[in-house]
Amino acid sequence: MSVTAPLGFRAAGIAAGIKASGGRDLALVVNDGPSRAAAGVFTANRVKAAPVLWSQQVLSGGRLKAVVLNSGGANACTGPEGFQDTHATAEKVAEVLQDSAGEVAVCSTGLIGERLPMEALLAGVDQAAGQLSKNGGLAAADAIRTTDTVSKISFKRGEGGYMVGGMAKGAGMLAPALATMLCVITTDADLTSEELDAVLRRATSLTFDRLDADGCMSTNDTVLLLASGAAGVRPDLEEFGRKVTEVCADLARQLLVDAEGASKAIAIEVIGAACEQDAVNVGRTVSRSNLLKCAIHGEDPNWGRVLAAVGTTDAVFEAERLNVAINGIWVCRGGGVGDDRSKVDMRPRDVTITIDLSAGPHTATIHTTDLTAAYVHENSAYSS
Amino acid sequence: MSVTAPLGFRAAGIAAGIKASGGRDLALVVNDGPSRAAAGVFTANRVKAAPVLWSQQVLSGGRLKAVVLNSGGANACTGPEGFQDTHATAEKVAEVLQDSAGEVAVCSTGLIGERLPMEALLAGVDQAAGQLSKNGGLAAADAIRTTDTVSKISFKRGEGGYMVGGMAKGAGMLAPALATMLCVITTDADLTSEELDAVLRRATSLTFDRLDADGCMSTNDTVLLLASGAAGVRPDLEEFGRKVTEVCADLARQLLVDAEGASKAIAIEVIGAACEQDAVNVGRTVSRSNLLKCAIHGEDPNWGRVLAAVGTTDAVFEAERLNVAINGIWVCRGGGVGDDRSKVDMRPRDVTITIDLSAGPHTATIHTTDLTAAYVHENSAYSS
Repeated sequence: MSVTAPLGFRAAGIAAGIKASGGRDLALVVNDGPSRAAAGVFTANRVKAAPVLWSQQVLSGGRLKAVVLNSGGANACTGPEGFQDTHATAEKVAEVLQDSAGEVAVCSTGLIGERLPMEALLAGVDQAAGQLSKNGGLAAADAIRTTDTVSKISFKRGEGGYMVGGMAKGAGMLAPALATMLCVITTDADLTSEELDAVLRRATSLTFDRLDADGCMSTNDTVLLLASGAAGVRPDLEEFGRKVTEVCADLARQLLVDAEGASKAIAIEVIGAACEQDAVNVGRTVSRSNLLKCAIHGEDPNWGRVLAAVGTTDAVFEAERLNVAINGIWVCRGGGVGDDRSKVDMRPRDVTITIDLSAGPHTATIHTTDLTAAYVHENSAYSS
Repeated sequence: MSVTAPLGFRAAGIAAGIKASGGRDLALVVNDGPSRAAAGVFTANRVKAAPVLWSQQVLSGGRLKAVVLNSGGANACTGPEGFQDTHATAEKVAEVLQDSAGEVAVCSTGLIGERLPMEALLAGVDQAAGQLSKNGGLAAADAIRTTDTVSKISFKRGEGGYMVGGMAKGAGMLAPALATMLCVITTDADLTSEELDAVLRRATSLTFDRLDADGCMSTNDTVLLLASGAAGVRPDLEEFGRKVTEVCADLARQLLVDAEGASKAIAIEVIGAACEQDAVNVGRTVSRSNLLKCAIHGEDPNWGRVLAAVGTTDAVFEAERLNVAINGIWVCRGGGVGDDRSKVDMRPRDVTITIDLSAGPHTATIHTTDLTAAYVHENSAYSS
């Protein structure tokens, strides 16, 4: 299912020989219309990979015929030659589809600072084009994996019978905005590119942007939303927004659970904030405390490390009015010792840390993982 | 030597029974004058431990008779009762010295969120007072250790014959401002508290504030500078500033080398910055990239992770003009692939990453460590 769950889409995932492992490493997603409306959200990193620079330019037109994605190389920090490689990839896709390169988005993921093996990649585009099918969604999702241990796919049915489908990859460098990831979402509903853009920005701000596995922001993050209009349904915009958000949230959850070396999925729930931005900032800052992430890994409800992190933010709060609960036990009340910390059950994989700033009605939840020796191993044993 | 290297100071370090290990855990440093001028710099964390709140108040008077320090408990997030404990500790020191509690600073370090065992601590003050001596500097430096594997001490002789001595502790939560640490610096030169304050702020901004082991800011950081005037020397202020900075740099280096679980000492040297603040911000941001710290641990000169971190800052730079050298090899030039990365020798413990922003003449160096499985173990295996 994945990106081919909605009508009007074909996809393929093949092994082009880009990855040393020999596994699938090139995916192609094609929108057969009748509509080609599309929108994209990209990394906020100022060092952007060539495919991000290219796809941003393409998306300014609000239309996409196809998306070509490769794992095995990020094509980031590769200079004008790297941009030329991306351009050539889009031209090749346009050629095999007899369409315009100006409506072909390109996504790459893998090691930064190395050129892509273009001969293999361009031959792979031919091969992928030959295998495009309405059942190709799973193979495409498989082909964009890097250190992901599983493919990430999702789909939901909307009111009136339209579908939203999606695939994503990402297992490290998960940080806003966005998480380090590639994501393609498709729908057979009929919407304008402006509508898609508004819906996608809101959906990603509530989901992928609130995922922070290791605080590291990628050069390649891309989330695309393509609408074929093939179901002939003009959905209610709010209802459509909810469906896209559900798909994004589902994929974000899958990314979190598969994050490199993680043994815990931690929800940092900030309540009582003076504004939503305060809640997000506090959650983000706490989610980046290596000391706290180690403590959670050790199943230690060390709320002092939560307060130490909250204290580094400029959110509205008074230290003596902070309350912290871990898995429902209010271990810190009024900035000091609260209920007995030995009552906290730290054994489940899911850990919820609730931080009450006692400063207002606003809330936000940031999702992160623990810091483990396995994370260190995965990110020090080889280049990625 | 340590804090008792200059004339006019006595110190002691004893086992009061605060630490479960039974090791030394209480230090007392006394200034016998004739001067009592003093200055202090404290954590920027908004969640401040009781002893920080107390000592900031004391230092507003610009005079210190004594400093009492304990390991085995941070007395942070302990509410009004914790502040009362700090107050009682200062009163006890004043009593044994027949002096004023208003000129006694208190420092604590250890686990956040637990009350101190006051009976043991107050008895310890009596014991320490009985052991005060001009040779007590080493015992005092030993008593403030937590996860530090060695004591940190330093001393330098100034022009005209005065001395500057110091001791410090800190092995985790090393982040500005300041690194998670306690530090007491003494001198027998004769200076006003205003002069000491200016010198200390400048010295810490160039040393401890540029140390960032794990990005976590403590609730207890304190650096104190006490002048007895016993050498009868009024030093040149600039020369005195250099000496204090040298002592701070020496202690900072010792903290870095002893940082929890570290196997590499990494200097992030930022050059070509439009202003000093840009250089500091870029260095700090790069020093906090878990992915980069893992790569350095794995002896992988992964400059892509450097650029990915630089790109998240708001410093003045253009991505295509960034250059990066690792241990002297310019592996990234003009934002792209530079010299052969296989030429980089990653085996030495010291690793220097030079980032040229190509945007101006300013520079700054931030010191950090690699991220290791040992760090994870040390911070997850027990509460600290």
